[in-house]
Amino acid sequence: MPRWIPRAKERLRDSAVELFLERGYERVTVADITERAGLTRRTFSRYFADKRDVLFAGSELLASAVGDAVAGADPGLSAWEATVTALREIGDQLAEELVPTAANRRVVIRSSEELQERERTKFALIATHVADALRARGTPSPLAEVLAETGVSAFRAAFDQWLDAPEERSLSTVFDGITAELAARIGGMTGNG
Amino acid sequence: MPRWIPRAKERLRDSAVELFLERGYERVTVADITERAGLTRRTFSRYFADKRDVLFAGSELLASAVGDAVAGADPGLSAWEATVTALREIGDQLAEELVPTAANRRVVIRSSEELQERERTKFALIATHVADALRARGTPSPLAEVLAETGVSAFRAAFDQWLDAPEERSLSTVFDGITAELAARIGGMTGNG
Repeated sequence: MPRWIPRAKERLRDSAVELFLERGYERVTVADITERAGLTRRTFSRYFADKRDVLFAGSELLASAVGDAVAGADPGLSAWEATVTALREIGDQLAEELVPTAANRRVVIRSSEELQERERTKFALIATHVADALRARGTPSPLAEVLAETGVSAFRAAFDQWLDAPEERSLSTVFDGITAELAARIGGMTGNG
Repeated sequence: MPRWIPRAKERLRDSAVELFLERGYERVTVADITERAGLTRRTFSRYFADKRDVLFAGSELLASAVGDAVAGADPGLSAWEATVTALREIGDQLAEELVPTAANRRVVIRSSEELQERERTKFALIATHVADALRARGTPSPLAEVLAETGVSAFRAAFDQWLDAPEERSLSTVFDGITAELAARIGGMTGNG
């Protein structure tokens, strides 16, 4: 029976990100990570499939959470409003949890083309969940997919901008600013009806 | 001196897509492709790096072309208008050229997670070129990136919908329909001014 190790997952994650920054992602092994964290390979395997997974653990959960939030949003909201509301809500929960490692994680991701591809896949998965939820609310394809991808693009940009100075303003404030500008720039084009 | 072989590139591409469909992408080798096309490995290497490249050849060229079209769009157009105009223009040129293989190519891409990742990278590259051109026109970050990604998302959805029945209507007609709906749905949210 494995005994419970306090904060094992967080210790592994923090050690991994530290090592990726110090030595470069390619040159770090799982053995390096467990040694730095003072934990075993077996404990590592309980939480992560491999070293890349340390940077993307929870992606599926995050995507489902955003999709559920869209599904659960007030039925009176439009598809775009439901998308923005869901992303804002999950984003603020996420932000607090991520502040300690997110900036370092970003440096690591930017250092590797492979990690950037994986990061795109993560956001594509979130968009897929949002689009599924929008279709279930009655938005037709392909509009559901385009609205979902637009919302996720705005969220990703907001997260990135917020991360430059997380203590200055909340993620949702940054996100609201971007979606308002987007609406003005895109919506301003057509006569709308 | 290599002699000129008529339509070698197209023959290799068509043979590759045929074989991917018949046998599954994973099970096809470059040797299979050159044999089917009746051409040599050396000729293959003149056009493509590997079998995956057959499906993505021209991605860089396409991304630059869209970026250039944004840069060259009427200076009086807004960022969103310039994006949409550029994608519509390049799209219609592309559509004619792609009709014969695009539907089969789509089946192959959908069959493989790896190819879907590569396809996302292709569209991300187009968005990067559009965003660069928008910033050069004066649109600030991160709005330039979000507008670029939104435009590319709409374009991708339009291409996909158009491909279901390319003889029925032009790609630009489908694209105009999606961008108009998008503007109505996103722009309808805020008071704008």
